[in-house]
Amino acid sequence: MSKYKPLEGMSIPRFAGIPTFFRLPIENNPEKVDIGVVGVPWDGGTTNRPGARHGPREVRCASSMVRLYHPISMKSPYDVAKVADLGDCSVNPVDLQDSLKRIETFYLNLSKLNTKPISIGGDHLISLPILRALGKNEPLGMFHFDSHTDTWDSYFGGFQYTHGTPFRRAIEENLLDPKKIVMMGIRGSLYDPADLEWAKNKGITIITIDDFLKIGFKESLEITRKVLGDAKCYLSFDIDGIDPTFAPGTGTPEVGGFSVRESQNILRELNQINFVGADLVEVSPPFDINNQTSLIAANIAFEILCLMTKTSGSL
Amino acid sequence: MSKYKPLEGMSIPRFAGIPTFFRLPIENNPEKVDIGVVGVPWDGGTTNRPGARHGPREVRCASSMVRLYHPISMKSPYDVAKVADLGDCSVNPVDLQDSLKRIETFYLNLSKLNTKPISIGGDHLISLPILRALGKNEPLGMFHFDSHTDTWDSYFGGFQYTHGTPFRRAIEENLLDPKKIVMMGIRGSLYDPADLEWAKNKGITIITIDDFLKIGFKESLEITRKVLGDAKCYLSFDIDGIDPTFAPGTGTPEVGGFSVRESQNILRELNQINFVGADLVEVSPPFDINNQTSLIAANIAFEILCLMTKTSGSL
Amino acid sequence: MSKYKPLEGMSIPRFAGIPTFFRLPIENNPEKVDIGVVGVPWDGGTTNRPGARHGPREVRCASSMVRLYHPISMKSPYDVAKVADLGDCSVNPVDLQDSLKRIETFYLNLSKLNTKPISIGGDHLISLPILRALGKNEPLGMFHFDSHTDTWDSYFGGFQYTHGTPFRRAIEENLLDPKKIVMMGIRGSLYDPADLEWAKNKGITIITIDDFLKIGFKESLEITRKVLGDAKCYLSFDIDGIDPTFAPGTGTPEVGGFSVRESQNILRELNQINFVGADLVEVSPPFDINNQTSLIAANIAFEILCLMTKTSGSL
Amino acid sequence: MSKYKPLEGMSIPRFAGIPTFFRLPIENNPEKVDIGVVGVPWDGGTTNRPGARHGPREVRCASSMVRLYHPISMKSPYDVAKVADLGDCSVNPVDLQDSLKRIETFYLNLSKLNTKPISIGGDHLISLPILRALGKNEPLGMFHFDSHTDTWDSYFGGFQYTHGTPFRRAIEENLLDPKKIVMMGIRGSLYDPADLEWAKNKGITIITIDDFLKIGFKESLEITRKVLGDAKCYLSFDIDGIDPTFAPGTGTPEVGGFSVRESQNILRELNQINFVGADLVEVSPPFDINNQTSLIAANIAFEILCLMTKTSGSL
Amino acid sequence: MSKYKPLEGMSIPRFAGIPTFFRLPIENNPEKVDIGVVGVPWDGGTTNRPGARHGPREVRCASSMVRLYHPISMKSPYDVAKVADLGDCSVNPVDLQDSLKRIETFYLNLSKLNTKPISIGGDHLISLPILRALGKNEPLGMFHFDSHTDTWDSYFGGFQYTHGTPFRRAIEENLLDPKKIVMMGIRGSLYDPADLEWAKNKGITIITIDDFLKIGFKESLEITRKVLGDAKCYLSFDIDGIDPTFAPGTGTPEVGGFSVRESQNILRELNQINFVGADLVEVSPPFDINNQTSLIAANIAFEILCLMTKTSGSL
Amino acid sequence: MSKYKPLEGMSIPRFAGIPTFFRLPIENNPEKVDIGVVGVPWDGGTTNRPGARHGPREVRCASSMVRLYHPISMKSPYDVAKVADLGDCSVNPVDLQDSLKRIETFYLNLSKLNTKPISIGGDHLISLPILRALGKNEPLGMFHFDSHTDTWDSYFGGFQYTHGTPFRRAIEENLLDPKKIVMMGIRGSLYDPADLEWAKNKGITIITIDDFLKIGFKESLEITRKVLGDAKCYLSFDIDGIDPTFAPGTGTPEVGGFSVRESQNILRELNQINFVGADLVEVSPPFDINNQTSLIAANIAFEILCLMTKTSGSL
Repeated sequence: MSKYKPLEGMSIPRFAGIPTFFRLPIENNPEKVDIGVVGVPWDGGTTNRPGARHGPREVRCASSMVRLYHPISMKSPYDVAKVADLGDCSVNPVDLQDSLKRIETFYLNLSKLNTKPISIGGDHLISLPILRALGKNEPLGMFHFDSHTDTWDSYFGGFQYTHGTPFRRAIEENLLDPKKIVMMGIRGSLYDPADLEWAKNKGITIITIDDFLKIGFKESLEITRKVLGDAKCYLSFDIDGIDPTFAPGTGTPEVGGFSVRESQNILRELNQINFVGADLVEVSPPFDINNQTSLIAANIAFEILCLMTKTSGSL
Repeated sequence: MSKYKPLEGMSIPRFAGIPTFFRLPIENNPEKVDIGVVGVPWDGGTTNRPGARHGPREVRCASSMVRLYHPISMKSPYDVAKVADLGDCSVNPVDLQDSLKRIETFYLNLSKLNTKPISIGGDHLISLPILRALGKNEPLGMFHFDSHTDTWDSYFGGFQYTHGTPFRRAIEENLLDPKKIVMMGIRGSLYDPADLEWAKNKGITIITIDDFLKIGFKESLEITRKVLGDAKCYLSFDIDGIDPTFAPGTGTPEVGGFSVRESQNILRELNQINFVGADLVEVSPPFDINNQTSLIAANIAFEILCLMTKTSGSL
Repeated sequence: MSKYKPLEGMSIPRFAGIPTFFRLPIENNPEKVDIGVVGVPWDGGTTNRPGARHGPREVRCASSMVRLYHPISMKSPYDVAKVADLGDCSVNPVDLQDSLKRIETFYLNLSKLNTKPISIGGDHLISLPILRALGKNEPLGMFHFDSHTDTWDSYFGGFQYTHGTPFRRAIEENLLDPKKIVMMGIRGSLYDPADLEWAKNKGITIITIDDFLKIGFKESLEITRKVLGDAKCYLSFDIDGIDPTFAPGTGTPEVGGFSVRESQNILRELNQINFVGADLVEVSPPFDINNQTSLIAANIAFEILCLMTKTSGSL
Repeated sequence: MSKYKPLEGMSIPRFAGIPTFFRLPIENNPEKVDIGVVGVPWDGGTTNRPGARHGPREVRCASSMVRLYHPISMKSPYDVAKVADLGDCSVNPVDLQDSLKRIETFYLNLSKLNTKPISIGGDHLISLPILRALGKNEPLGMFHFDSHTDTWDSYFGGFQYTHGTPFRRAIEENLLDPKKIVMMGIRGSLYDPADLEWAKNKGITIITIDDFLKIGFKESLEITRKVLGDAKCYLSFDIDGIDPTFAPGTGTPEVGGFSVRESQNILRELNQINFVGADLVEVSPPFDINNQTSLIAANIAFEILCLMTKTSGSL
Repeated sequence: MSKYKPLEGMSIPRFAGIPTFFRLPIENNPEKVDIGVVGVPWDGGTTNRPGARHGPREVRCASSMVRLYHPISMKSPYDVAKVADLGDCSVNPVDLQDSLKRIETFYLNLSKLNTKPISIGGDHLISLPILRALGKNEPLGMFHFDSHTDTWDSYFGGFQYTHGTPFRRAIEENLLDPKKIVMMGIRGSLYDPADLEWAKNKGITIITIDDFLKIGFKESLEITRKVLGDAKCYLSFDIDGIDPTFAPGTGTPEVGGFSVRESQNILRELNQINFVGADLVEVSPPFDINNQTSLIAANIAFEILCLMTKTSGSL
Repeated sequence: MSKYKPLEGMSIPRFAGIPTFFRLPIENNPEKVDIGVVGVPWDGGTTNRPGARHGPREVRCASSMVRLYHPISMKSPYDVAKVADLGDCSVNPVDLQDSLKRIETFYLNLSKLNTKPISIGGDHLISLPILRALGKNEPLGMFHFDSHTDTWDSYFGGFQYTHGTPFRRAIEENLLDPKKIVMMGIRGSLYDPADLEWAKNKGITIITIDDFLKIGFKESLEITRKVLGDAKCYLSFDIDGIDPTFAPGTGTPEVGGFSVRESQNILRELNQINFVGADLVEVSPPFDINNQTSLIAANIAFEILCLMTKTSGSL
């Protein structure tokens, strides 16, 4: 039996032991595993409330509450893939460009070794260097769960790299194919009525939360599956797509979002999509309450792991 | 272009600057604006958990997270009306009647100048002196979002002025027309089976949360619009109408209430109503968690501002 | 008029007075009342996060917010039954078996006096000694609201008594009739795909939260009522059946659960069931936020009290 | 042996049982006891941050951590006096004068029965009606531990009754003899350089915290004992005399105050003073952290109880 | 009388009104005042826990608790100088060098207008651009209260600008005269035994907290005054010089520090020093508890204001 | 250079990486190191507020803030000894005797390998099985820092094993030599005036906090050193010896205790004592505030590590 399994909760209590993602073994050699869970403790792209640099540690701690089998499929990702905690990617808290470079380097190596990453951020700008590695050879499709499109052009007088711009940059750099992108959950007051136009003009499919309510869960997911098709896709899950009452520990909360149950059910409908990598970003522990956002993040990360191993299930 | 606009978040970070409502200019002369946002930092009518006197300050702070355009209509209230922060109304924390008088005086002036107020409380008793000013000449209709009817007669041996009695007094004083009042969200255990009877006998339309669930969102709103018609209406939004998990920072929490999303969607259906004033009350920061109630209140206040400027939109 | 009524909130403020359950009189002689509310401050069966021993005190405090009449039926349990706070059952925080024995003894006495108990835990293992008293003569049916089945066999190398095993033991000891048990709300990742099998094989009706979503509220409740029929039933309400955003103060949170409103509506559909006893367990105040879980628990306990006195009502 | 003793912690865990002050019996007939601990859940005199109305409940809960014997004297107040929890005095949260009257009435009865009160507030204005009862026949001396003198004349345009004015009123009403008053711990920025003058002119001995640091612990206490002499004295302990890092749960925190250890040691030096009544005020649980202020308050109240029974001891 | 005075707390409650520093008027033209209080909401130099960007807002809110007169001197800074809130300096949350430039520009203007700044940070790197303005013409002396010397050379492979390096850079740039610098309160475990050597070699007087305890308060202050003499001095107060139990809201807490009382008394001994500017940095509200760090910061800022106006006093 | 050193904070940020004690390597083979830091996540002996089972994880997280060199001695324990994180000892959360056995077994192995343990609890009962291993061959001396003597005989009707009894059992089992035990910091109200007598009669030297204040720091430490002499000693540090304002995260807080600075200075005076093992117990994260108790615990554990490697220093 593979050694790449979580510690057993029935013999070692879940509050015990050094906290790794899902109580998995630490593995410094990514080559040995199929899927690597990676922390990216960096929030240098944050324009509002910081703290996402503390995300990986708290999600590790909270993930000890997650067990091994998916409750609908009754399957376990650990039965079909070798999964380990690869530790944290190197970052520089006081230099943005240096950090982007370090992150890209780390993921180029994973890409070369064909180890699929699930990254725990960190703010949303980390998606850019990750995509520079994963989308290097051909642009990827993407399922993007978020309350913001993160396709702004620039902030504060022309500065192009913030957590509000990664996907504009990624499309400009041909790392993503906008025609194969679905953004779901977009909501909240806007700076400008033109805020979503660039994205729409590029061909991105945006399902705002209001669209979702109007057309319903079923049709929203059908549209999503149709757009993503069988493309190689990236999954980017911003925790602020979930309602901030459920997930308060984040930098740019937008009220009126998805419940956790809705979020789980949305993800579970994507079991057939070909995800080659994923991130879960914007968990900001200093703004969290009793680690409840980290606990949600850990459960969402498990759903994502099930998606990437085709061990999820839907209603 | 009007100077009565929020500071720009893209050039001045939203955590920076002195916190006014929606980052609007402070304006001491109400005559200059169409709509004035006013703080009423007073909770002298509170019979249970106090703290609403701290509401205005925290809602100001949280409101810096709200942007300029409504996400459905793509319109901005600031494009059609001059809006400013009028500061806080004078109050007396240790004398109830003196406070009622000070508040009435402040709003009589606004009324005279034809400046429509959005008031941030403060406990629900503040609605009474506001209505004494706004409903002086003719009784108003009212949309009342709350978990309680606030039509009690008296407490503690005959005391008539508390945050549980404002609308009984207002109807007795002919400031409100009970036939044009809709109360939505009423719920929770009762002191007496007759609790709602006075209100019903007066002709108030009460849609309890259980009624709402039984007849549904659509019919509830149709009834509401029909009752309010084209009357001059007041909007009184008690934050405890929202479920206390979402909005814990309030004095008399009643579990099992509306989610924020439901609350937003209810308000958005009232864009055609003729609101001449509004309040948002019972935000009690000492009982809040990470200011999440204040953030919700700020977003609700923005919805109200959109309603009063006909810049809201619905699904 | 019966003296077994709550203190009046309109004359004695709800924040005043020594906190008993629902502001009821303390009664040391259980014989005098029909229904006794009992604290069981013990969490010695907890395998994960402790603290449920502090549940009774905080639920007592929070319960002063609950009034006397059910909002749908407009009936009051205090009009049809004598209800009192019986104080806390004796427990031993450092000896599991001694505690089980003390609890059983306490409830055998209630059983003999025909006083129906509503027990406020404490962790879920307290249900076992209670059932040893209440189910002594004939096995009971049970409505079990929870995110876990609590039918594990053993932990940590064969230890049989934990808060994950009470109902396996109770069925083995013939205290419960598995064919008359409904478990609702089961969810979350599993240790093993066989986790639910023992229970299913015994004939227990399990309605997971996913089943609930698939077949709907109405059918779920119809099934429930059909299984329970007119059997003498026990009601065991684990607060972790509610979503941990609503009820964070619990030891084993499972995200994606019922809202409070759903939970209330589920219970209200069981007004015809013959409940002879009930418990509300796993409220862990050290993990709570602003006592919101205790407030929910107090409101749920009131719903249960209404069920046991047939004074509840449904939509 | 007297029944007026706390429950035993070695057989009934301290987290169990209905919380009364020090786990003492509830006694509705004050005549039966020598010393009655009374809650006064009222904060209607508060000009700044409210919440002291919630003080009695939380101090009751926290007081279950206090044991029976003083650590220096090795004596117990319960061995020399009958002490009970008399419950909460009646108050009116929305009428100041009505509340003052209700409180005075309650304490006149105690006074008549010769039951010495230890009152747990509530804000500092409660001292006035208590003194109207206790100082009715002859003016009392007073040891006043506080960061403010509470001898202001009026607020908000002439309003005379607030928590900043009780001792001015009490002296004007001849309830206290200013020559036999010591105020200790006064500190913090002032509204006016004349703030302390009225008090000094009346002959009150003020030992500011700066005086205390300059002349030292020993001399400060010698002065205190000399001023109080063998007069009948009242003890008024405002929790904000303690540094707000230790005791954050209060309405008007002044940084730079006494540590708890200093506060304990100050009180312990007053074992020979003839205290006929005492209060502990301004504990405001909504501003507290993990109930630490309530725990300190409970321990201070125990020190006061030891003083009033001459069972305290000093280094 | 000058209009540059705080709002009166006796007529406008301290919880009311738009929160400016010390409730002072907002003044956009620095030329009009002698001393300007400035927010610098930026933490881009933070290598550990972020959040100091939120410092100015919370210190403004907390500062409404501070009154007008110093408790020892009985003097008020507002009687001898015109003081106003100058608002927040412009910053860029995602570009370090751009931010340093913007800050320097802002302070060069103040310097030109001869308006002395009290700056509320922000992390400690803000001291560098401020000193580039204030120390431009001649190097300044400095009283530096901190648990760290902040004279590191570089982090993360040679990066020279972080909140651990400002004073090394300032000395290299000849903005500070190391012979006229006193650093007080230095403590905590070290990365390297050579950590303090560069500073000592440059001639900086370091009084670690252990030195302070050994030689005592009096001698420590005598040394300080002797080193600073009558030089033009800057005062840099890092809130982490105070013990983190008192001031938890900071990024790099070092246990075992000064109490607030000690900190106040240290500052009060420097009333004769010629301070031409000051900052108070590293208040990080996301890590604060009930705003207690902000309240301390506001009180310390008032002490600093008194020092700069010679209105402080000592024991 | 030894690989048993902490990760470098100057190149890998302290918030990054999987949290081990002091960022040390994980070592499963204790034979390889001189000193092993071990977690003992168990609180089954707790008679009051539980949660110490969560201590090891949070102390690991907080310990990433501690650097390598002692601030007074300028020496590092890592330069003189190989130190590693040995992970968590196996425990059983639902069986007390099974847990005592598992812990003893773990430490017997360390003892055999001559690896000195620093144990992070867990409640105070863990000291007993540790001493059964370390004191097996000859009774040890002990420095015991605590607010309680933990020499009770039994609780709840004769139960002998709780966190209030370990040292009575250890002396009875001849694992400790009472004549070589110093208990420092004992304080708080007592159940019985005889509480300390057994300990005193056995010859234990008790320095209550009141004794400490009376005879002073210097003499207290001289007595301590004299009693301990050059015996093989154990160090048992109960975090509740520190004042609960500093260290609130503990189960049985006693107000009026040592500050952290005093605690550090006490330990630093024991650099010459021959400590062969140590524990730090009773850190209960569910009762902590912002992890401040864990941070203090981590710093204290570093002081202990310096003591055990003779790399500490005193004023």
